Amino acid sequence: MNDKQKKPQKLKARLPRGFVDRSANDIRAVNEMTAKIREVYEHYGFDPVETPLFEYTDALGKFLPDADRPNEGVFSLQDDDEQWMSLRYDLTAPLARHVAENFNEIQLPYRTYRAGYVFRNEKPGPGRFRQFMQFDADTVGAPGVQADAEMCMMMADTLEALGIKRGDYVIRVNNRKVLDGVLEAIGLGGDDKAGQRLNVLRAIDKLDKFGPEGVRLLLGPGRKDDSGDFTKGVGLDATNIEFVMSVVEKQPYVAVGNRSAEQVAKLNELTERSFSAKEGFSELDMIHGLVTAAGYQSDRIKIDPSVVRGLEYYTGPVYEAELLFDVTNEKGEKVVFGSVGGGGRYDGLVSRFMGQPVPATGFSIGVSRLMTALKNLGKLGQADTIEPVLVTVMDGDVVSMGRYQRMTQELRKAGIRAEMYQGNWKKFGNQLKYADRRGCPVAIIQGGDERAEGVVQIKDLIEGKRLSGEIEDNASWREARVAQETVAESDLVAKVKEILAAQAEDRKRAG
Amino acid sequence: MNDKQKKPQKLKARLPRGFVDRSANDIRAVNEMTAKIREVYEHYGFDPVETPLFEYTDALGKFLPDADRPNEGVFSLQDDDEQWMSLRYDLTAPLARHVAENFNEIQLPYRTYRAGYVFRNEKPGPGRFRQFMQFDADTVGAPGVQADAEMCMMMADTLEALGIKRGDYVIRVNNRKVLDGVLEAIGLGGDDKAGQRLNVLRAIDKLDKFGPEGVRLLLGPGRKDDSGDFTKGVGLDATNIEFVMSVVEKQPYVAVGNRSAEQVAKLNELTERSFSAKEGFSELDMIHGLVTAAGYQSDRIKIDPSVVRGLEYYTGPVYEAELLFDVTNEKGEKVVFGSVGGGGRYDGLVSRFMGQPVPATGFSIGVSRLMTALKNLGKLGQADTIEPVLVTVMDGDVVSMGRYQRMTQELRKAGIRAEMYQGNWKKFGNQLKYADRRGCPVAIIQGGDERAEGVVQIKDLIEGKRLSGEIEDNASWREARVAQETVAESDLVAKVKEILAAQAEDRKRAG
Repeated sequence: MNDKQKKPQKLKARLPRGFVDRSANDIRAVNEMTAKIREVYEHYGFDPVETPLFEYTDALGKFLPDADRPNEGVFSLQDDDEQWMSLRYDLTAPLARHVAENFNEIQLPYRTYRAGYVFRNEKPGPGRFRQFMQFDADTVGAPGVQADAEMCMMMADTLEALGIKRGDYVIRVNNRKVLDGVLEAIGLGGDDKAGQRLNVLRAIDKLDKFGPEGVRLLLGPGRKDDSGDFTKGVGLDATNIEFVMSVVEKQPYVAVGNRSAEQVAKLNELTERSFSAKEGFSELDMIHGLVTAAGYQSDRIKIDPSVVRGLEYYTGPVYEAELLFDVTNEKGEKVVFGSVGGGGRYDGLVSRFMGQPVPATGFSIGVSRLMTALKNLGKLGQADTIEPVLVTVMDGDVVSMGRYQRMTQELRKAGIRAEMYQGNWKKFGNQLKYADRRGCPVAIIQGGDERAEGVVQIKDLIEGKRLSGEIEDNASWREARVAQETVAESDLVAKVKEILAAQAEDRKRAG
Repeated sequence: MNDKQKKPQKLKARLPRGFVDRSANDIRAVNEMTAKIREVYEHYGFDPVETPLFEYTDALGKFLPDADRPNEGVFSLQDDDEQWMSLRYDLTAPLARHVAENFNEIQLPYRTYRAGYVFRNEKPGPGRFRQFMQFDADTVGAPGVQADAEMCMMMADTLEALGIKRGDYVIRVNNRKVLDGVLEAIGLGGDDKAGQRLNVLRAIDKLDKFGPEGVRLLLGPGRKDDSGDFTKGVGLDATNIEFVMSVVEKQPYVAVGNRSAEQVAKLNELTERSFSAKEGFSELDMIHGLVTAAGYQSDRIKIDPSVVRGLEYYTGPVYEAELLFDVTNEKGEKVVFGSVGGGGRYDGLVSRFMGQPVPATGFSIGVSRLMTALKNLGKLGQADTIEPVLVTVMDGDVVSMGRYQRMTQELRKAGIRAEMYQGNWKKFGNQLKYADRRGCPVAIIQGGDERAEGVVQIKDLIEGKRLSGEIEDNASWREARVAQETVAESDLVAKVKEILAAQAEDRKRAG
């Protein structure tokens, strides 16, 4: 292994497609963010619970939107007893299994939250990974839409706790029963029409992207995009297209009691054609009433019948957290940031395992996406981590090295982040280069002469850097101008503390 | 889905063998623990970095101890481009891949830490899971044993930061080179003897469990245990057995300069038979010198030539954190708690991918095992979580419910954990039962009369519980004796705060 020759057979270091390593900055940012999210959820009376990454494949079920992906979108393998296991594709299906498995011990309503990795076996793309983190909250055993209303308020509070200003986000709420009713009303009910229903929902989901005319084309004959590519349409006739659009096209929601005669008539037209739609609208009215009573106006939580959530297990209200500010996409275009999470009611998911209905609702935040948004807004990583003080190594014998080690421990004991140089100490230049690249604030140096005298040299590397901007010859600044002092070894900790405090003061003044 | 009939085909809710759900208590305990560990590592100048759960199978390599497990101990599956991927079995092999893949951007020495789940495809047993969490720290690009010494000190500091008293733990240190030298000296060098070497190491690893006589039997003819089961021995002759035992049998380590003539002679006998052993002992002497200079005596870090670490990739110093206090095992026997983590030097792991040597060392903490230990010591979960205040629901119309919702939000805004009852509100008894089982400190009640008067009833449930212990008829305590007050709705927050403060005071007095 110590052979310095290149081995012809050496392994290639690479990650499978769609997986990424996480940097220190990202990890710290996510920790900062999830701590704030957790605080809001705890405040709302939710407790943590977690499930493992594997489930039996049948227990997870098949609820992912695009059935045309490898293994239907999940990573699966056979256990040695031949049973198929899959990595979870979300945190909701495993929670349903957990509740069903422990139903006798669990006190309903069961209010829990969890953060964890989920896996999708799909083609990776820019910003689209096969492993990503979700942060979910769910109430199981909650039959009324007041639980859905609470979820929407909690999402709004969470975004504000993370520093997103009112007006920069909105929670949009719809109801699967409304969409189901619309589909039923135009003759797309029944198990055999599942494929067509999915295509209609996908078309509706494109309202933000293609506008009402684009959606009309997708619902009808089909749509050609700018590049000339043609997407086949659902083939609805003009009457049905207009009926669908009359429900989903964006229009201000008007609360019960404030509706015009025309609005009431329009609503009645729909709800007379579908009981499901009637029920759906009445639930939306209730949600609207509850969140308004609790002080959440439509700038924060908004009823919007165009909201479609991709997962197939939703049975009632669905909701989505959308960030409204503009960002520049990879093509250089300004676009609205868009969804960072959402959820809905899944009354059938737990009862798949049970002899009884178990109503539930919950939502999921896409952690990486939300982190990207917060970084865009400058709301994360403001608290810079101070890099460690570097104790350099001039001599490698056990006595000298023991002394460096003791100094390092003394700094640590005083609460100062510190390390002794652990690379090849014989090239001293590498040690200072390391301190410089890493951003170490201070370096400690003790050679044989200093050791004999019981002193150390302390370099203020930040001061050195600042000075280096003021002199022309960069190569020589370290020798010429660095802020460096010689102090008694017993004063080491006090002197380092003093320098760190001065640097902190500088940072504060620089804003 | 709303069908109340039992469906004959309903799914069974169960987890694959060897996987478990985590409770709120465990999650909070692990979070408390990992935050403390992280603080120590950051203090030592380590930064977080994380890798995904999947790696290409060849990049992980095969270093797990027991080759006789399904798929050699890992969970693997084929990607759609036919390449094999595996779930990581530890956090070290993926770090090696990460360093090699980003070698040009990474500044060496590279000091990082990470917590994450790892997976072993093995037969699960009591306390032995197929998914578990490790918390690792590593220095890559560190050729000298001062980096190993630092790891040992950091492990010791971590255990003390978690509240484990000095004397209740020890970091035991050995060197693979010593063991390799011993094996070489008795003629077990060479690739063709790998199996026999492994058996000798496994025998040595049993020293704690079976004592020196047991190990002698395992190295020789074999050993019969109490149940009569026979384990085949390695078949060494008596001379070689004694030679092995002379190195690994526990005896106090004596520092250079303090050794008796007999001890020096014994050491020379070994080191003259093997250069590897000589180098190994000299590195142990250096580690001993460094940790002693930094103030770590042998009650904290102890050289112990019987330490064997299972993973095959270690090339130099190996170290193990052992907890020394007794616990009662599942058979009711008192046993030493034992290892909670360890690690060592793996100079070959990164260079598998590179044309150059990249020396590295690091260690891993078994998070669940350490958590179990801390729970045994009463060092975790001391800070009780206060359960939420429950706002009960007496009426389900949108106006009443909106009012409950608003009260709940007001409590939350005042920093109080609170929730509105989300189950079926029509059975009021269930709401109080829920509050009782969950341990809610306070319940808020507002029926039609109270609403008309603008007041609420506030039940102090902890006071109620206390009183209930003082009266005989448990069934009637709630009606008869609960601490309940009626206050103006506008005084709700202030009154709840007052009750919570009184309860906190009670807890404090009760110790």
